[in-house]
Amino acid sequence: MRILVLGGAGMIGRRLIDALVASGELAGHGIDAIHSFDVVEGAFDSPLVSSQAGDIADAKTITGLVEGRPDVIFHLASIVSGEAEIDFEKGYRINLDGMQNLLEAIRKAGDDYRPRLVFTSSIAVFGAPFEEPIRDSFFHAPLTSYGTQKAICELLLADYSRKGFVDGVGIRLPTIVVRPGKPNKAASGFFSGIIREPLAGIEAVLPVDDDVRHWVASPAAAVGFLLHAATLDAAALGNRRSLTMPGLSITVGEMIETLREIAGEETAALIRRTPDAAIQKIVAGWPRDFSAERAEAAGFVADPDFAAIVRAHIADERARAAQMNGDAA
Amino acid sequence: MRILVLGGAGMIGRRLIDALVASGELAGHGIDAIHSFDVVEGAFDSPLVSSQAGDIADAKTITGLVEGRPDVIFHLASIVSGEAEIDFEKGYRINLDGMQNLLEAIRKAGDDYRPRLVFTSSIAVFGAPFEEPIRDSFFHAPLTSYGTQKAICELLLADYSRKGFVDGVGIRLPTIVVRPGKPNKAASGFFSGIIREPLAGIEAVLPVDDDVRHWVASPAAAVGFLLHAATLDAAALGNRRSLTMPGLSITVGEMIETLREIAGEETAALIRRTPDAAIQKIVAGWPRDFSAERAEAAGFVADPDFAAIVRAHIADERARAAQMNGDAA
Repeated sequence: MRILVLGGAGMIGRRLIDALVASGELAGHGIDAIHSFDVVEGAFDSPLVSSQAGDIADAKTITGLVEGRPDVIFHLASIVSGEAEIDFEKGYRINLDGMQNLLEAIRKAGDDYRPRLVFTSSIAVFGAPFEEPIRDSFFHAPLTSYGTQKAICELLLADYSRKGFVDGVGIRLPTIVVRPGKPNKAASGFFSGIIREPLAGIEAVLPVDDDVRHWVASPAAAVGFLLHAATLDAAALGNRRSLTMPGLSITVGEMIETLREIAGEETAALIRRTPDAAIQKIVAGWPRDFSAERAEAAGFVADPDFAAIVRAHIADERARAAQMNGDAA
Repeated sequence: MRILVLGGAGMIGRRLIDALVASGELAGHGIDAIHSFDVVEGAFDSPLVSSQAGDIADAKTITGLVEGRPDVIFHLASIVSGEAEIDFEKGYRINLDGMQNLLEAIRKAGDDYRPRLVFTSSIAVFGAPFEEPIRDSFFHAPLTSYGTQKAICELLLADYSRKGFVDGVGIRLPTIVVRPGKPNKAASGFFSGIIREPLAGIEAVLPVDDDVRHWVASPAAAVGFLLHAATLDAAALGNRRSLTMPGLSITVGEMIETLREIAGEETAALIRRTPDAAIQKIVAGWPRDFSAERAEAAGFVADPDFAAIVRAHIADERARAAQMNGDAA
C-alpha cells in the first residue's frame, strides 16, 4: 500500500506519518511507501518515508504526486484561518485551488483509479448564530474565508465522490489542543498557549473571558480520526461524506481549573488575563458545542476528558525532551 | 444607473430586461443602460439595451464587462442540471469558473466599486433526506453537480460580500412553471410540460406519479424576486446572503386538477402517464417543501396560487400570439 500525505511536514502530518511508520500497516495492508508533500521539506528517519517540498496550487506538481497512484491520500495541507483572512488571494490559492488540483488530478488519472481521500475540514465551516448543539445537518455559514474554503472543499469532495472519481471522507477537526511548539497564526492559538506556556514555566496571555466555551481535541485524537477515516466503510456515509469529529465542549475556565489540578496553583497563575477586543470578536463567532453522533456511529472516538489531554501533552513533551537529550548524547 | 445581465438571452433574463425597460427605473434611479451578456446574442428592441455574446468562463471577457462599472449585476447564466450532470467539466466551467471570474473581476476593479450582485441559486443546493419544511438553516448536501456548483457560488458570494468586495444577494429559485417554448434539458421539464403542452393542444408525457410534490413559482414571480433582490437593504441579511424564495408546494395531481378546472377535461386528458424510473429517481432526491420565512420577512412575495400561475401563462401565450400576428401584419 502506498500513502500520500499532503501537509506531511505539519504538526498533525508528522504525527500521522510517525503513527503509520510505527504500525507498518493500514486496514490490514502492509505499507510499502509513504510520500510526504508540504511547502517545506519534512525530516523523517524511516526508509518508508520520502519527502518533497512544493506548491499545492501548482497543478502539474499535484498531477505528478498522483501519478504514483497512492491507495490512500491524506490532505492536511492548508494555511490557517488568520493568514487566510489577511491574505485573501493566498487563502483561496492554497486552500481551494490546491483541493481542486488534487481532485482533478485524481479524476484525470482514469476510471480504474479511485483512492480513499481523507480531507481535513474544520468546524469553521459553521458560523454564528448557531443551533446548539450543532448537528451535521446545520448549514454552513462560515464567517471567515478559511471556513468558506473548507466548506467549498467539502462540497467538491462529496460531488467527486458521488460521481465515482474518488472515495472521499471529510473530517471536521475540533481545535487541536495542546499544540506543541511555537504559536502559529491561528486566532485560536491561545487555547493551546494557556496550557503549553505555563507547563513550560512561561507566562501565557489569555485574550478572552473564562466563560468562553470551545470544542477541542488532542493531537493524538486527531491522528486517530485520520487513521479511522482512511479505513472505515465509506458506503455507510452515503452522499454525506464529511463529519464533525467528536470533541470536548469545554470553557476556558474549566481548562484552567484542570491545569491547576494537574500542575498546581503556581503553574495556573502564569496565565495573564489581557482582554483583546479583536480576538474576543473573532472567537464570539466560533461554534461551541456539537452533536457528533454521525461520527460516533461511524466509530470515531473522542478524548475521554481534558485532564487526559493535558497529561498526554506532558508525556509528549517529556518524550521529546528525552529524545533531544538522546540525540545530543 | 447601468445594469449588467449575465444570461440576458435566457427565458428569465429576457423577461427581466423587458421589465426593466418597461419601468425605466430601478430603486428610484433612472436606467441609463442595460447590457445583456449570454452565450448567444439576445434580440432586444429598446435603445436602452445592448447585447453581447461570449463565454462566461473566459476571465478577460468578464473583466471587460465589469470595466463598465455596472451599478447592478444580475447573474442568471448557468447550464441546467441535466447538462451539468452529463458534462462534468462544462458544468464546473460555466457554473463555477464563471462565478469566480465575475467575483474576481469585481474585486480587482477596486475598493471604490461595490455593485449589488444578484445571483440566481437553486433549491438544488439541498439533497435528500430533508427536514420538512426545509429552512434556510438546513445544510447543503446537493445530489447533483449543478446543486454543488450553486452551493459553492453561494459560499463565494457570502465571503466576497463579507469582505466588502461586492454587495451580494443570492436567491434560490423554485422550479419555474410554466416555462414557455420548447422543453430544455432540465429533468424538471415535465412540470411545465404537463401544463404548457395540453394548453397548446399537444400531448404531454408525465414520467412521475401524481403524488409527487414540488416547489414552484411562475416566471413573473421570478422576475419579481430578481427586482426585489436588486433593491432591498442587504444589511438586514447579515452574512447570510442567500435566501430560499417563497414558492408554492404542490403535487402533480393538484397541478393537473387546476388545469382541469381552468381548461377542461379534454385538455387535462392530453397528459399521458408514462412512468420513467430514471426521472422518478432523480425527482425523489428533490426537495418538496420549504419555509421561506427569511425571504418573506425581507419582502419577497410568492404567487398567490397555482391557478394564478396557469392563468398568467395563458395570458402570456395570448400576448405572444398577438405580437407575432402584429409582427406579421
